[in-house]
Amino acid sequence: MAELGLTWVRIGEFAWSRLEPQPGQYAFDWLDRAIDVLGRAGLRVVLGTPTATPPRWMLDRHPDMLAVTAAGQVRGFGSRRHYCFSHDGYRAEAVKITEALARRYGRNPDVGAWQTDNEYGCHDTAISYSPAARVAFRDWLAQRYQSLDALNRAWGNVFWSMEYDSFEQIDLPNLTVTEPNPAHALDFRRFSSDQVARFNGAQVDVIRRHSDAPISHNYMGRITEFDHFATGAQLEIATWDSYPLGFLEDRVEGDDAHKRRYARQGDPDFQALHHDLYRAVGAAQGGHPPGGGRWWVMEQQPGPVNWAPHNPAPLPGMVRFWTWEAFAHGAECVSYFRWRQAPFAQEQYHAGLLRPDSVAAPGFAEAAQVAAELAAMPQVEVAQASVALVFDYASAWAWDVQPQGQGCDYFRLIFDIYRGCRKLGLSLDILPSDTVDLSGYRLVLIPGLVTLPGALLRAVNRADGTVILGPRTNAKTADLSIPLPLPPNIPGLDVTVTHVETLRPDMPVAVAGGGAVTLWREHLETTSQVVERDVDGAPLMVCHGKTHYLGGWPDPEFLGRILRRAADGEGMETHDLPEGVRLRQSGPTRFVFNHGAGPVDFAGQTIAAAGVVWSRA
Amino acid sequence: MAELGLTWVRIGEFAWSRLEPQPGQYAFDWLDRAIDVLGRAGLRVVLGTPTATPPRWMLDRHPDMLAVTAAGQVRGFGSRRHYCFSHDGYRAEAVKITEALARRYGRNPDVGAWQTDNEYGCHDTAISYSPAARVAFRDWLAQRYQSLDALNRAWGNVFWSMEYDSFEQIDLPNLTVTEPNPAHALDFRRFSSDQVARFNGAQVDVIRRHSDAPISHNYMGRITEFDHFATGAQLEIATWDSYPLGFLEDRVEGDDAHKRRYARQGDPDFQALHHDLYRAVGAAQGGHPPGGGRWWVMEQQPGPVNWAPHNPAPLPGMVRFWTWEAFAHGAECVSYFRWRQAPFAQEQYHAGLLRPDSVAAPGFAEAAQVAAELAAMPQVEVAQASVALVFDYASAWAWDVQPQGQGCDYFRLIFDIYRGCRKLGLSLDILPSDTVDLSGYRLVLIPGLVTLPGALLRAVNRADGTVILGPRTNAKTADLSIPLPLPPNIPGLDVTVTHVETLRPDMPVAVAGGGAVTLWREHLETTSQVVERDVDGAPLMVCHGKTHYLGGWPDPEFLGRILRRAADGEGMETHDLPEGVRLRQSGPTRFVFNHGAGPVDFAGQTIAAAGVVWSRA
Amino acid sequence: MAELGLTWVRIGEFAWSRLEPQPGQYAFDWLDRAIDVLGRAGLRVVLGTPTATPPRWMLDRHPDMLAVTAAGQVRGFGSRRHYCFSHDGYRAEAVKITEALARRYGRNPDVGAWQTDNEYGCHDTAISYSPAARVAFRDWLAQRYQSLDALNRAWGNVFWSMEYDSFEQIDLPNLTVTEPNPAHALDFRRFSSDQVARFNGAQVDVIRRHSDAPISHNYMGRITEFDHFATGAQLEIATWDSYPLGFLEDRVEGDDAHKRRYARQGDPDFQALHHDLYRAVGAAQGGHPPGGGRWWVMEQQPGPVNWAPHNPAPLPGMVRFWTWEAFAHGAECVSYFRWRQAPFAQEQYHAGLLRPDSVAAPGFAEAAQVAAELAAMPQVEVAQASVALVFDYASAWAWDVQPQGQGCDYFRLIFDIYRGCRKLGLSLDILPSDTVDLSGYRLVLIPGLVTLPGALLRAVNRADGTVILGPRTNAKTADLSIPLPLPPNIPGLDVTVTHVETLRPDMPVAVAGGGAVTLWREHLETTSQVVERDVDGAPLMVCHGKTHYLGGWPDPEFLGRILRRAADGEGMETHDLPEGVRLRQSGPTRFVFNHGAGPVDFAGQTIAAAGVVWSRA
Repeated sequence: MAELGLTWVRIGEFAWSRLEPQPGQYAFDWLDRAIDVLGRAGLRVVLGTPTATPPRWMLDRHPDMLAVTAAGQVRGFGSRRHYCFSHDGYRAEAVKITEALARRYGRNPDVGAWQTDNEYGCHDTAISYSPAARVAFRDWLAQRYQSLDALNRAWGNVFWSMEYDSFEQIDLPNLTVTEPNPAHALDFRRFSSDQVARFNGAQVDVIRRHSDAPISHNYMGRITEFDHFATGAQLEIATWDSYPLGFLEDRVEGDDAHKRRYARQGDPDFQALHHDLYRAVGAAQGGHPPGGGRWWVMEQQPGPVNWAPHNPAPLPGMVRFWTWEAFAHGAECVSYFRWRQAPFAQEQYHAGLLRPDSVAAPGFAEAAQVAAELAAMPQVEVAQASVALVFDYASAWAWDVQPQGQGCDYFRLIFDIYRGCRKLGLSLDILPSDTVDLSGYRLVLIPGLVTLPGALLRAVNRADGTVILGPRTNAKTADLSIPLPLPPNIPGLDVTVTHVETLRPDMPVAVAGGGAVTLWREHLETTSQVVERDVDGAPLMVCHGKTHYLGGWPDPEFLGRILRRAADGEGMETHDLPEGVRLRQSGPTRFVFNHGAGPVDFAGQTIAAAGVVWSRA
Repeated sequence: MAELGLTWVRIGEFAWSRLEPQPGQYAFDWLDRAIDVLGRAGLRVVLGTPTATPPRWMLDRHPDMLAVTAAGQVRGFGSRRHYCFSHDGYRAEAVKITEALARRYGRNPDVGAWQTDNEYGCHDTAISYSPAARVAFRDWLAQRYQSLDALNRAWGNVFWSMEYDSFEQIDLPNLTVTEPNPAHALDFRRFSSDQVARFNGAQVDVIRRHSDAPISHNYMGRITEFDHFATGAQLEIATWDSYPLGFLEDRVEGDDAHKRRYARQGDPDFQALHHDLYRAVGAAQGGHPPGGGRWWVMEQQPGPVNWAPHNPAPLPGMVRFWTWEAFAHGAECVSYFRWRQAPFAQEQYHAGLLRPDSVAAPGFAEAAQVAAELAAMPQVEVAQASVALVFDYASAWAWDVQPQGQGCDYFRLIFDIYRGCRKLGLSLDILPSDTVDLSGYRLVLIPGLVTLPGALLRAVNRADGTVILGPRTNAKTADLSIPLPLPPNIPGLDVTVTHVETLRPDMPVAVAGGGAVTLWREHLETTSQVVERDVDGAPLMVCHGKTHYLGGWPDPEFLGRILRRAADGEGMETHDLPEGVRLRQSGPTRFVFNHGAGPVDFAGQTIAAAGVVWSRA
Repeated sequence: MAELGLTWVRIGEFAWSRLEPQPGQYAFDWLDRAIDVLGRAGLRVVLGTPTATPPRWMLDRHPDMLAVTAAGQVRGFGSRRHYCFSHDGYRAEAVKITEALARRYGRNPDVGAWQTDNEYGCHDTAISYSPAARVAFRDWLAQRYQSLDALNRAWGNVFWSMEYDSFEQIDLPNLTVTEPNPAHALDFRRFSSDQVARFNGAQVDVIRRHSDAPISHNYMGRITEFDHFATGAQLEIATWDSYPLGFLEDRVEGDDAHKRRYARQGDPDFQALHHDLYRAVGAAQGGHPPGGGRWWVMEQQPGPVNWAPHNPAPLPGMVRFWTWEAFAHGAECVSYFRWRQAPFAQEQYHAGLLRPDSVAAPGFAEAAQVAAELAAMPQVEVAQASVALVFDYASAWAWDVQPQGQGCDYFRLIFDIYRGCRKLGLSLDILPSDTVDLSGYRLVLIPGLVTLPGALLRAVNRADGTVILGPRTNAKTADLSIPLPLPPNIPGLDVTVTHVETLRPDMPVAVAGGGAVTLWREHLETTSQVVERDVDGAPLMVCHGKTHYLGGWPDPEFLGRILRRAADGEGMETHDLPEGVRLRQSGPTRFVFNHGAGPVDFAGQTIAAAGVVWSRA
């Protein structure tokens, strides 16, 4: 293993039954031996709790612990993540086994870190419509609103005669005749997110009592069903599982040409966005410098996987490439999943660094190459970026609950804008919506933040750089109503969204200066300075000083124009990057990544397919 | 409000809980005040019953009152229309609150009209597979067939050993292994329609006991699940809710180009068809002149709505345009929904005449403009049209139950033929299938009328004008069997449909004279005069005198040829209308509507986008 | 009927209620009379058991006899095939009525053959997730594995903590959170297939006790959910129901152009494949010559049907054409379904030889023409073909359970390769995977056979001709694990599949010699002779002597090249057939079929649309 330069090994998602073959009877032999062997080899263990895979006997004890789909179907035993976050009995069991682990290994010097559970929310498991969830939701609502009058008023239940006379009458917002009250649905989304944090927090608490090692969780790609900043605040390290090829196929917008072009490399911006996002999540516990906190890639795809609609092999070099991309964005560690390909059960076509016959798979040599390159390189620094993009999970829920038009999705909007910045060669920090200080950023982007917190609004007013808000920023009250005065209600900026329309994807509204607005378009009444208009002269973007409001979803051309003007105004360097090329500025080091399947010329260099080059300022 | 020229205000779908905050305890204050305020302002109220939104406590009383989907899922509380039409307990509750309203306001001079419930059948609610429906269906079958032998024989249950030994064995026709017996399914559709009429009739009966004001119901677009003529026969006024943009997106056939072209105007024929249809439904109570009865638009879309896949804003002028189109088709009243945009709950992105902040929205001025124009204009008359098109809800059910090919839908066929007439500048009356007199019509179209009533057939034989029957007209017995002799069995016309085929949409059969037959094609054996043949010489349309039978679904070119020849033969004027232009002859007044997004020249005039012009003969 | 040259009439799927109007009380009058009338007319009866259509009273006796979908929905009464193969009570009832029939008609000279049930597996009925199935599955597993340890080990249940402590804990592999263990799913598929054979075998046993007449079952097209060779081993004759137009629309891959081109003729290879397949199934009872056993077409489509997405009429001549195609492939009998079109119930738009009014339908004259042609022709012989293609139902289940990429389907692979052979003018035999002797075949194709039986592998080693294995051949152990050493592990052939990738359909991998690999691609490590490489030089096909391994799914061009080279090497004649033309060598007789909609020139002859010509060597 030395040739891989390995430092850490995660023992995660191992069989609960290995540890607790019978209810309440623990068997530590296997784990003792595994940790011992790894420790002797000079490796440090990240020890995961096995709570994502409750054993079959657990269901005999807690038959109602299973989650339920929105369609009302119980999600049974036979794979993984078969539990509802709201089930008190199962949460107690999870704490119990976590405590057993923490007691035994909390001070073990070979256990260098912890991981709670595995991939919260994967397979749509953050939201459950189970009886346990219903009971817990009623309790959550009673805590939140204290009185039914308050709830009925907040939700506007006088509409369609939806008032409740008791909290026991409130059902989960599924299986209604037509759409449920969006305020009802949004509260259920908030509740569901809180339940994940509560479950995670219970494990964290018990580990903390027995161990000083940092605690982590491995998040996934494009899971917005729970607030990662909330769980992040409980944890020292954010990690994520990076599957560029699988994600491109199953969760990135894009036409066939885009998916074909990047089929063996992954989307050029999807991983980077999550690196930046989880760097921010890693900082949620506080005390971190601008630019973010501790974060890792816990599972890096090392070859073809088994679960996407199509599962091609990566282009030669991509395993090295993806690893370097993570380091360039500040990862402390990149870990590959899995070590050896398992010949049985669900993931047998999921590549490892080793083949099932323990021969090195193609990814192995690439991992070794990174190890050698890393050893020869000064540390990659993380510094505050020049661009900040605010990401807010609650806004994702609000857009989900009330998209107003097909395709109007918060993550998609964020991703479009993130990509727009990257195509100009900019590096970004992602910030949560509870940010109170924007100083140091030359460009701050706050799109689609449905309810703008007061503290962030004050930070906007004090910001040094250019700020662009909208579309749909500050469009709703906390109860998801339309506020009065009408949105966006930004002090200093005299602009009112009189009405909103959503557009067929084939019906863009042309912008006078070039490009178009698509999907979401707001009609603005304003006395502020108009900086963009549609071809009929109607205002689309206004500003007061450096504070801008953008009243629509920009297409790439329009977005590029907006961003370039802002960057120019702030004296920031931008580039016309060739297709597939992306930059990342890491302190004094500039990385150039070629995501293309062929060589490309950039800045006087030819960069090979799957190539990455770096230079120091 | 004077500037709007308002006369009527509907108080409809208000919260049941406003009126009955506790079970059995009424609170009339809010409604008293509302009616009083409106009355003092010179407005007359259409008072709706709140039965589309039963309050939450109703479910505690009648836990089994909810409807069930074909997939077996209970449709719960939390939005609206959460009741099954077959539930006796809820129907009694609906009568009770209706009686409370009728008692109090039946003689109130400010209450000028009534509305029962709201949008029967919206959200697919006319059909329910609940236990209550099952019990009621068995009873309905027992009443209809009197004996199981009769039922088994009528359905042909000897096939696949489907005989029943008792009515209690008969389930609803959902969740079968493969398709259920079509006769079973059709009877369930008839039953479901009857249940709507029974529910509506119960409200009508109780209102009549206390009020002389006319009673109405607001129908929707393209709802064919219940026989509107049956409810129409119970009511004085038919109204409908006209949402041209939403309907174009979610219930009109058409490719992307069509939907993009009319995205801000609505389909050029969809509203007109419903105006003509509901004019006929308004006449169902009888005693009305040829051309139809009393009808209104109860909810006219005044801006973007919230519920379609995409929700663009109307082109400036469309609110006026739609209003005029309704008046041109004989509407007594056009009412806008809603007065003020609600900032909370499900419809907060549904535009009103006022914005949430009570400022006038764009539609307001257009409504005011119509009011001024109307005041300056002589009354729009309704006269019998020259073309009659028979519309039959039972045929829609038969096609649904037994389409024989994808895309073979009765409403679609009717709409194609309606549009074909309109493209030639013709104005139409729609007639129910119980019509007994076709005199005065120069062209009568009876497509797809699966079982031709004897009285209508006799009227056909006595008709003055040209009559075109088919395709699939008189193709089935009342039990949905193939009759002997084979269809269409039209006296005087020697033509037999030997067999039917359904065609891929990309596989039209070319017609010798131009155009093609698509989707549905019949093979005809005939000794009558053949007026159309396919390119291989097989007959497609035959006639005897003025009675024609058409053995296929015509494409626009073929249809245009057929209709033009018929019109020419009857000496009727036709036009080659430019794309998007439509005419409506209202007595001596001819209206020209430009549904296009740009100006168009017609008859020596340039008509602006969203423009309407009129002239008197 | 004499003009049709009729010999056989099937009385099948008749109403159970005709025979047993009350539980346990038989009424043979109708059947006595029917058999008597037919016998007097010189016809022999194939008597079917009515067990596909249990009467309604059966459900009162066995309320839990119904099948359940994977989504958990009970599949109710009201059509047909409403039973679960695992229900012991219903199986006993099926045996009882079969015994009643066998007792009464077992020695009746007019009853020349039997048919069990009707179209096993039609409407996805072979697999049921009912409580009865769950109980039976647990028992089946206990029999198979004897111990839970063995099962847990075989399935690899240590993964994701999926171990079971008792057989009673094992559920059916549906409704899991994400995919179930593929070994679990595969065992359920094996079990489901076994249950069909058990059900069929129970009827066979009881008929055998009372009759010496041969027993048959009528299979369907592209049903792979149960092992037809297993039921075939219980029966003397395999029959199938050939619906070329319906099958083209609802179960053949192909773009719109393909489906449009053959809309009135059916796919050029789909019927032929099933003829060859069921000839093999007919041989499963043993004792048959190379080339296959007894088989019939039991239901030949005689005109338009009622159940496909679109239901066009066949091209004139196709009924004759399809009949000749069946005879050319060795059918003993071609029977048309149905005799007279039924005017009521589910199949009233399903053409018969007679119309509902008993007038001859278009297919009638064509059937009569075949009868005359047959009478004038020497017997069509069946001889061993030069090409063998191995078809294995268990492999279809393994691909289903673990496709690894969208579109990777076993039948599709078989069909592609079958079609590739046919486009070169080759005739094939289909062989089961328990074949132990390949002598006499000049080309043997074994694609996608997931677990290669030892006996077949030995036969491969002894084969006279060229053998092509792969892709995915011998890729898995019997427990669906990846074996060690890695696949394909063919003695004599040094080739290892290091990893597998699945490809977007728009992402073919070009082959150096022309054509491409699509969908499924294997990476090969080899020291054997490489005969095909991709354009980057990576091996795609290797050989050792005449044994070849193909590491990918070939597109038509690549496949054509492989097959032609193999045929050339074996000195077999191949052709460049025009589009739609296919040959069939039947002993000394060569048939040429033109599946095209227009005339085509081949071998100096012009063959009309829907034309078939034959000549003797």
